[in-house]
Amino acid sequence: MTATRLSSKLRVAIVGATGIAGQQFVDALRDHPRFAIAVLAASERSAGRPYGEALRDAKTGALRWWCADAPPAHVLDLPVIAGARLDAEEVDLVFSAVESDVARELEPKWAATRPVVSTASAYRYEEDVPLLIPGVNLDHAPLLHVQRKRRGWRGFVVPIPNCTTTGLAIALKPLHARYGVERVAVTSMQGISGAGRSPGVVALDILDNVVPFIPGEEEKVARETKKILGVLGEGAIVPAPCVVSATCTRAAVLEGHTEAVSVALGGSCSPAAAAAAMREWDGGIRGLPSAPKHLITVLDDPFRPQPRLDRDADGGMTTSVGRLRPDELWPHGLRFVLVSHNTKMGAAKGALLLAEALDRDGYL
Amino acid sequence: MTATRLSSKLRVAIVGATGIAGQQFVDALRDHPRFAIAVLAASERSAGRPYGEALRDAKTGALRWWCADAPPAHVLDLPVIAGARLDAEEVDLVFSAVESDVARELEPKWAATRPVVSTASAYRYEEDVPLLIPGVNLDHAPLLHVQRKRRGWRGFVVPIPNCTTTGLAIALKPLHARYGVERVAVTSMQGISGAGRSPGVVALDILDNVVPFIPGEEEKVARETKKILGVLGEGAIVPAPCVVSATCTRAAVLEGHTEAVSVALGGSCSPAAAAAAMREWDGGIRGLPSAPKHLITVLDDPFRPQPRLDRDADGGMTTSVGRLRPDELWPHGLRFVLVSHNTKMGAAKGALLLAEALDRDGYL
Amino acid sequence: MTATRLSSKLRVAIVGATGIAGQQFVDALRDHPRFAIAVLAASERSAGRPYGEALRDAKTGALRWWCADAPPAHVLDLPVIAGARLDAEEVDLVFSAVESDVARELEPKWAATRPVVSTASAYRYEEDVPLLIPGVNLDHAPLLHVQRKRRGWRGFVVPIPNCTTTGLAIALKPLHARYGVERVAVTSMQGISGAGRSPGVVALDILDNVVPFIPGEEEKVARETKKILGVLGEGAIVPAPCVVSATCTRAAVLEGHTEAVSVALGGSCSPAAAAAAMREWDGGIRGLPSAPKHLITVLDDPFRPQPRLDRDADGGMTTSVGRLRPDELWPHGLRFVLVSHNTKMGAAKGALLLAEALDRDGYL
Amino acid sequence: MTATRLSSKLRVAIVGATGIAGQQFVDALRDHPRFAIAVLAASERSAGRPYGEALRDAKTGALRWWCADAPPAHVLDLPVIAGARLDAEEVDLVFSAVESDVARELEPKWAATRPVVSTASAYRYEEDVPLLIPGVNLDHAPLLHVQRKRRGWRGFVVPIPNCTTTGLAIALKPLHARYGVERVAVTSMQGISGAGRSPGVVALDILDNVVPFIPGEEEKVARETKKILGVLGEGAIVPAPCVVSATCTRAAVLEGHTEAVSVALGGSCSPAAAAAAMREWDGGIRGLPSAPKHLITVLDDPFRPQPRLDRDADGGMTTSVGRLRPDELWPHGLRFVLVSHNTKMGAAKGALLLAEALDRDGYL
Repeated sequence: MTATRLSSKLRVAIVGATGIAGQQFVDALRDHPRFAIAVLAASERSAGRPYGEALRDAKTGALRWWCADAPPAHVLDLPVIAGARLDAEEVDLVFSAVESDVARELEPKWAATRPVVSTASAYRYEEDVPLLIPGVNLDHAPLLHVQRKRRGWRGFVVPIPNCTTTGLAIALKPLHARYGVERVAVTSMQGISGAGRSPGVVALDILDNVVPFIPGEEEKVARETKKILGVLGEGAIVPAPCVVSATCTRAAVLEGHTEAVSVALGGSCSPAAAAAAMREWDGGIRGLPSAPKHLITVLDDPFRPQPRLDRDADGGMTTSVGRLRPDELWPHGLRFVLVSHNTKMGAAKGALLLAEALDRDGYL
Repeated sequence: MTATRLSSKLRVAIVGATGIAGQQFVDALRDHPRFAIAVLAASERSAGRPYGEALRDAKTGALRWWCADAPPAHVLDLPVIAGARLDAEEVDLVFSAVESDVARELEPKWAATRPVVSTASAYRYEEDVPLLIPGVNLDHAPLLHVQRKRRGWRGFVVPIPNCTTTGLAIALKPLHARYGVERVAVTSMQGISGAGRSPGVVALDILDNVVPFIPGEEEKVARETKKILGVLGEGAIVPAPCVVSATCTRAAVLEGHTEAVSVALGGSCSPAAAAAAMREWDGGIRGLPSAPKHLITVLDDPFRPQPRLDRDADGGMTTSVGRLRPDELWPHGLRFVLVSHNTKMGAAKGALLLAEALDRDGYL
Repeated sequence: MTATRLSSKLRVAIVGATGIAGQQFVDALRDHPRFAIAVLAASERSAGRPYGEALRDAKTGALRWWCADAPPAHVLDLPVIAGARLDAEEVDLVFSAVESDVARELEPKWAATRPVVSTASAYRYEEDVPLLIPGVNLDHAPLLHVQRKRRGWRGFVVPIPNCTTTGLAIALKPLHARYGVERVAVTSMQGISGAGRSPGVVALDILDNVVPFIPGEEEKVARETKKILGVLGEGAIVPAPCVVSATCTRAAVLEGHTEAVSVALGGSCSPAAAAAAMREWDGGIRGLPSAPKHLITVLDDPFRPQPRLDRDADGGMTTSVGRLRPDELWPHGLRFVLVSHNTKMGAAKGALLLAEALDRDGYL
Repeated sequence: MTATRLSSKLRVAIVGATGIAGQQFVDALRDHPRFAIAVLAASERSAGRPYGEALRDAKTGALRWWCADAPPAHVLDLPVIAGARLDAEEVDLVFSAVESDVARELEPKWAATRPVVSTASAYRYEEDVPLLIPGVNLDHAPLLHVQRKRRGWRGFVVPIPNCTTTGLAIALKPLHARYGVERVAVTSMQGISGAGRSPGVVALDILDNVVPFIPGEEEKVARETKKILGVLGEGAIVPAPCVVSATCTRAAVLEGHTEAVSVALGGSCSPAAAAAAMREWDGGIRGLPSAPKHLITVLDDPFRPQPRLDRDADGGMTTSVGRLRPDELWPHGLRFVLVSHNTKMGAAKGALLLAEALDRDGYL
């Protein structure tokens, strides 16, 4: 299968293809009905080598591939190019899974001519950049027109949020839409795959342990959640006027972020009503190839959700919520626990779902 | 070493001696200057066997001993008696580490003649029973006189709180004393040794996982924290008028409970002021044999406290606090993370420290 | 879907249905083309309750289900009966996943009228009982005729081996067939799910640890491997005349048994020749519904096989072999590492594959 | 405390002081009666910063300190120099804990004037370099005189073996001395701290897993064990004429190497006799400050040794042996399991013990 033979599909480039998020893009695009991998790009170090070789540890020769299924055979031979030399015009769409500093420099170059869907944080907080979660705030997408015009680009940059924000914003959205979210206290227990690229979390740090700090994470969760729950104003998003207070910790869990949430709502909402609101939420993503059956799955078993048991539900694309109960901290308080798959809905597959929605809605 | 040779020491019985908490009593009383183990009691199943035999797994013969140091040689030969047949008058003090239903039935029998210091929850919520943490609320101890009188006992029952309450109440106390604690939101990530007796947490449940529910735990934390921070009134404790809202989870950590805390205070308190208040707190336990140098240790490294690195600080008797920072959730909000050793300060060694304080203060 | 509607399928009973192996039977029989679950049986304690209820922890109410996919909806309502009251004539085949002592008592009762395929060890070592691994020694199956005749049964009992034996015997078979296996030294690092029923491995025992002893396991591995590699003689299996020396340990791995094997062969065999022999081995199971594409998968990456990455290969039904290299311990020595899925090929799914083979070959 | 005030102590330099092994040197030398830390050296990157600063992660600021006890306060302020600029004459002894390539280049420079005790592998296999384990083969030490003379050095280089070799050679030595070791098959399950410097083992690789390959390790174990069990000949060690065949794996264990050993002896030796030989072995290290009470501890509990329970026995300096049983693989076969602390006896503390022995015997 080569991109040239797939004239009916959009040709995509994956940049940062050797990292965890990049691999997840490769994995998620396996047999995709609408997008075909045309270019793989990574750092200068990997450039010029076939993808299968670039995945190997320089010292030990081990294949450093993090997805459950083996890499698709046909991509192993694709030559990796340096991200800095990617000519975006050769493809229809760029999936960017690079580090933030690289994203800041290179994403505008690609966006000059092509849409860039990014997992990087570099442009998340710019005024003319919407921070999109399909099913939650696709109504912010028209801001992309403003971005294009203002920056003189033919393409655009659209980032997805931090993986810890994703599950939180999804679970809050149906409550916010109906009752108004006023205050949020959240403690995350995050899986180690969320630490991203090599070396990621060192085993000596996390075995038999909890690490109570992830630099920058809490600020991202607060800022991004408010932006995503906000409304599209004149050329910018007006953040939701709520307070979000987070403690982000790392747990000895391979994948899946668990979050204990306490929320103050603007009106009375029983646990049953909250469950119904979450279960009924239709975020307008039904029918997209990567969409879960339900954006949110509410579990009645009080011992759920658990990251190992629930992270892969619905292809890792649903947010599992449980332990819904009143919270006497606030007049209209509610507590719950959620599990979200940080490297699926929270990263590449979530970005892919976003691209599918943008494609459907005419943005690509 | 036998009890009879130790005429200057108080003779103690440990009931529930084969469980984790009971073993920690045995371990903590090794070479104790003031108490000597005279009697070991456990369930009917263990009765009549030497302690060293009773510790063995019936099926496999493995020694089921959970403390870091091997059991003291001289106790391995002590015959275990059934708790139900313990004649409390043969000893000066009973350490009770039995399950709650057993405690409910047997502790009053022992208390009829002797003081009972208990890790069980059975009597924690009775009106005339103080719930004591040395260094925090020893001023509630006079309630024991009321208890004795009301129940016609020569002894008394004094429980320590749930291990998750312990660290929380200790960390809050200096803030409560100075500023008043109004609201508390806490998420715990608890070590597996806290699940107590065999079989405890099953490995298949917790490896690569977080379990978001521990039955009964959240109610205990709320109720006990308010009682401990309360004031001694007429024949009863008047609970502190604060709200405590908890989510208790189990993490893949051997020992040590980590708690992410968000607290609303009655007045303005900077992180630095909070740290100072905690560091300076002198709970009146200095000089007791099992007392830590500091009841609370405040760490400046943002990656601390971590359960594996900090649980054993000061013999597992200090509460390690870190990540002190403002919390915009509330007008006078503060956030922090604490680590407390659940089977040391939070269980047997904490009960031992309490017994030492009661001994010093003339209650034994 | 109920059994009565499935007249073309064989009706099966699963006994021990609430344990791990029993659950794996339930899971493996989901939509099976040839067998339909008609009866679920377990201990007296579970009897009379719907399966979905019997799976719940008595104390906490948690669903104790260990498979990755949720239990098939239609079985949750099936009433559980006591294994002792199972009338085998109501079904066509019994899958027995009970403890050994229960198997010893009950399997003959069922076998009097129906075939019993068992994961229990009770009858593995009887003279007229073959110990079958499909793809390895189905040529031992005719011994079932002897068994029937000798015992006056209409059915029979056919056990599968211990889960640690399974991977070893499979990997050795192609070598044994061509070169003759003379001596085997094996060290296993076994996953915790292999410890079977509640409570299984206690988390406090295995986190940050290796347990170097599994009672009875080493003897089983030695005895069973020799029987499986043996030849069918007059009314009995003549064991292979090799020495098998095992050290069986438990590792902090959820599922999958890893085995480091050193083998002395009867003739010269290069690693490449061994790999070819393993890859080419056709055990006569092709086309069976639960059969893997390859009974053995040989990996060239020196860091493989790894239990987490390889246990689920080919539905958990292939044995992954790697690190093939000469072993100078013996004249014709070979070393390798294997990973086998202990609760799939090594338990229920392996038993199911065996039943499929026996069905095809006219034994059912 | 500064080195200049400690005129009665030998002044030592630790090179590679920021890595795990280097930290263990710093930790082990705390209050040492005979050696005082005078110089800390590391890579160019750390040079010029106080040790406490050099230990911090560049990106996150976290203190990367791996020992249980906090670093001694007085060393935190010591300036770190670049190893390449160490003037060995400023100290009396160099402890080298650098990577092998660095060792190859720099150790000869230091050895020109001062003794170098090294954990690196660079010179382990040179003809005039003994590979010493105190208590096992101090009778090889006179080879250092040959080395000095041949190389024209005033000092010398003496490496300790690989941490996996250490426990194996110690356990075999009493058997070898009495019966002769002819063949050894060993499977190691190694703790992650053995992977050394940053980043060490990545958490995503080892959680819920076993990694069956450690590059170079098996060759080291074979070669080093034979050299250590060999005899001192004319200007070189004559290796023991035995075969050592190893499979080295990495397990999800923080510290401690577990090894399953199968050994063919030259004569008949019952498990009891082997246990007695091990228990009685007096390696001539009694009385040295870092020496364990017993070089080998033999455990009767069949579930021991376990790395978490036994690694710290006797300060991490004893090798714990259990599961001694006959091995029918060979005429005089024996099987056992051992646990050795890879970063204590197997690294810095072992090197320190060696230095103590060399000091006592007049080599320093």
